[in-house]
Amino acid sequence: MAKTIPASPLALPMPDMPAVAGARFATAEAGIRYRGRADVLLVDFLPGTTVAGVFTRNKCPGAPVVWCRDILPGGLARGLLVNAGNANVFNGTAGAAAVRVSAEAAARALGCAPEQIFTASTGVIGEPMPAEKIVAVTADLAARLEPAGWEAAARAIMTTDTFPKGATRTAVIGGVTVRISGIAKGSGMIAPDMATMLSFVVTDAAVPAAVLQNLLRRGVGPSFNCITVDSDTSTSDTVLLFATGAAGNPVTSDTRGLMAFRRALFAVLHELALKVVRDGEGARKLIEIAVTGATSAKSARRIGLAIANSPLVKTAVAGEDANWGRIVMAVGKAGEPAERDRLAIAVGGVWMAREGRVIENYDEAPVVAHMRGSEIRIGVELGLGQGRATVWGCDLTHGYVDINGSYRS
Amino acid sequence: MAKTIPASPLALPMPDMPAVAGARFATAEAGIRYRGRADVLLVDFLPGTTVAGVFTRNKCPGAPVVWCRDILPGGLARGLLVNAGNANVFNGTAGAAAVRVSAEAAARALGCAPEQIFTASTGVIGEPMPAEKIVAVTADLAARLEPAGWEAAARAIMTTDTFPKGATRTAVIGGVTVRISGIAKGSGMIAPDMATMLSFVVTDAAVPAAVLQNLLRRGVGPSFNCITVDSDTSTSDTVLLFATGAAGNPVTSDTRGLMAFRRALFAVLHELALKVVRDGEGARKLIEIAVTGATSAKSARRIGLAIANSPLVKTAVAGEDANWGRIVMAVGKAGEPAERDRLAIAVGGVWMAREGRVIENYDEAPVVAHMRGSEIRIGVELGLGQGRATVWGCDLTHGYVDINGSYRS
Repeated sequence: MAKTIPASPLALPMPDMPAVAGARFATAEAGIRYRGRADVLLVDFLPGTTVAGVFTRNKCPGAPVVWCRDILPGGLARGLLVNAGNANVFNGTAGAAAVRVSAEAAARALGCAPEQIFTASTGVIGEPMPAEKIVAVTADLAARLEPAGWEAAARAIMTTDTFPKGATRTAVIGGVTVRISGIAKGSGMIAPDMATMLSFVVTDAAVPAAVLQNLLRRGVGPSFNCITVDSDTSTSDTVLLFATGAAGNPVTSDTRGLMAFRRALFAVLHELALKVVRDGEGARKLIEIAVTGATSAKSARRIGLAIANSPLVKTAVAGEDANWGRIVMAVGKAGEPAERDRLAIAVGGVWMAREGRVIENYDEAPVVAHMRGSEIRIGVELGLGQGRATVWGCDLTHGYVDINGSYRS
Repeated sequence: MAKTIPASPLALPMPDMPAVAGARFATAEAGIRYRGRADVLLVDFLPGTTVAGVFTRNKCPGAPVVWCRDILPGGLARGLLVNAGNANVFNGTAGAAAVRVSAEAAARALGCAPEQIFTASTGVIGEPMPAEKIVAVTADLAARLEPAGWEAAARAIMTTDTFPKGATRTAVIGGVTVRISGIAKGSGMIAPDMATMLSFVVTDAAVPAAVLQNLLRRGVGPSFNCITVDSDTSTSDTVLLFATGAAGNPVTSDTRGLMAFRRALFAVLHELALKVVRDGEGARKLIEIAVTGATSAKSARRIGLAIANSPLVKTAVAGEDANWGRIVMAVGKAGEPAERDRLAIAVGGVWMAREGRVIENYDEAPVVAHMRGSEIRIGVELGLGQGRATVWGCDLTHGYVDINGSYRS
């Protein structure tokens, strides 16, 4: 049983999340692993709801990821079933059977085909999934569905998370205001090159599945794929985006409306991704790394992530030490084009090093003050090209060792 | 100033290291950073000594690495000058000048060309290198050179190391017994894809420089390039191998003798590499990961290192938790060919999972006992091919956070 961990000092409150037309929520205590809290979430969508998804690139994905990938090309969703406590990963054919049984139960309860039920599981890997516990609560869940349930939903999917994570925005498409709301969970085993952790976003806009998929794929790039807590890539990471169409906006080639929708969607994804980092296991400081002057945006992102994942940089930040030498080391280890004597490093907006060496008599006081804060900004200018990227990570503290040294015990 | 850290619980004693004919040592207190201990090492080699070297692949290497790479094609060495406390990295042109001034001083003292003086520096990055402090002690160092000085040499190059590291072997080439002895330093910022940390190996064998370089390049593969402490790639990593020729062995095509020499050299490199891991910052457990059944040896090594570098695996080991689920996750994130349902995982020789799922009723008692020990063995069988590799790492503990959160303060 996971220990009770105090809320992250970087926690942000759950925003006020109004209902999104066409989606209804219910949560239940299935007792899969946790006691005294909801651990299963069922969401019901209006018939005709379109869906998009991105998933982990881990070569050993969980059974729910395999299921979702299989049914995603259908482009339609009627339900979402999520549990916390057991990831249903590395359970062989029994894992796949557990997903099917659960999806079938939810489908019966919602009156649809199992192939319209998306599933996700998070928690311990390699323990048999007690699907019967989920099956046992589906009818009750379906009976209690209601439109306002975002915070309860966000809480039901938490594992080592210390606070529920939500974000919401609106956009206007063809004169109709649509809403985009989402939740996320994840605080460890977070790394990019994948969809990262679990996140579910719902909009009442009408958007064709192909357009939705394109938007989501682009949207995770600068958000979920630019955050890292510990460089570990989960077997279960899933981001799903559902569009119920209940807002009744015109689905025409309203370019301006689509751009507004895209902006709002990206803002939701960005806010959720940053909340995941803010709940990084043991995190006490959020680190933002802005890399400029790289040979490409991809190269800039890789360099940023090499810095964000460096244990030596992360422990230095934990120790409130503006150790730009370790930043240089991390730039160099990224394997991307970099020239030592063109490199410049800033901390908290103060340039400490330029053209390959420390700036003599740079003003240290604001840097020291900045390092004592809870949001650390690192700037890296490579002086080679126009490529830029911003990534986010967190410090490496005793809390991370505590949480992960005793998760199963 | 670095805090005094108690010796690693995985420390091994310095072996008895006899003199190697043709090499003489001296150490001195130059006061570069540390007080009350030697921080500079000078080694003098017989004229005609051949040399081989491998260096960090970090794109922002230290000035001494640049210097050594430049002079290595000469193939001959008369001296080795090493300091601890300042890495002379990211010091711009002043860094290169500091190396030249130091090498020139050593060359004057030993009566040779500066281009025959190899240099290495380890310690803080980005602080101006006080070359004058090294220059000030070179004449005195040259006056005190003596053949027996391995342990003092090993101590003079330490930074956050908690114990001196040495290894020695003999081999017979053409009826002549030759000796190979080496020292190493390094306990953090250790990761492969490079030569890793500082290590200096000396033999009295006569070996042409080209042969020596070939042997060293192959030798670092299964040793220094198969260890990791924290995935961070230092800017200064250097392995140098010197052959004084004083043993007077025949330099003919004695294949059998060369094989014996190679075996002894690889054993020295392997022992030194493992001692570096045993001194991993904060390490309390050594982790050996044997990967078999991969599609290639390279793939096996990458998978092994993904496991060894995973913070979640490392903290699980620290918590004495045989969390094979996290091992599966790390296999999957390596990006190498892997099939979940063919994967088998063993801990302490006990297979816990096979064919994609936990083995029901596997004997947990010996696994629990094994995890309480200080040398943890993880086995991964991929079931895909014949590729195999063994890598070594260590656990991630509070000690690592302590050491690296306050190194500069």
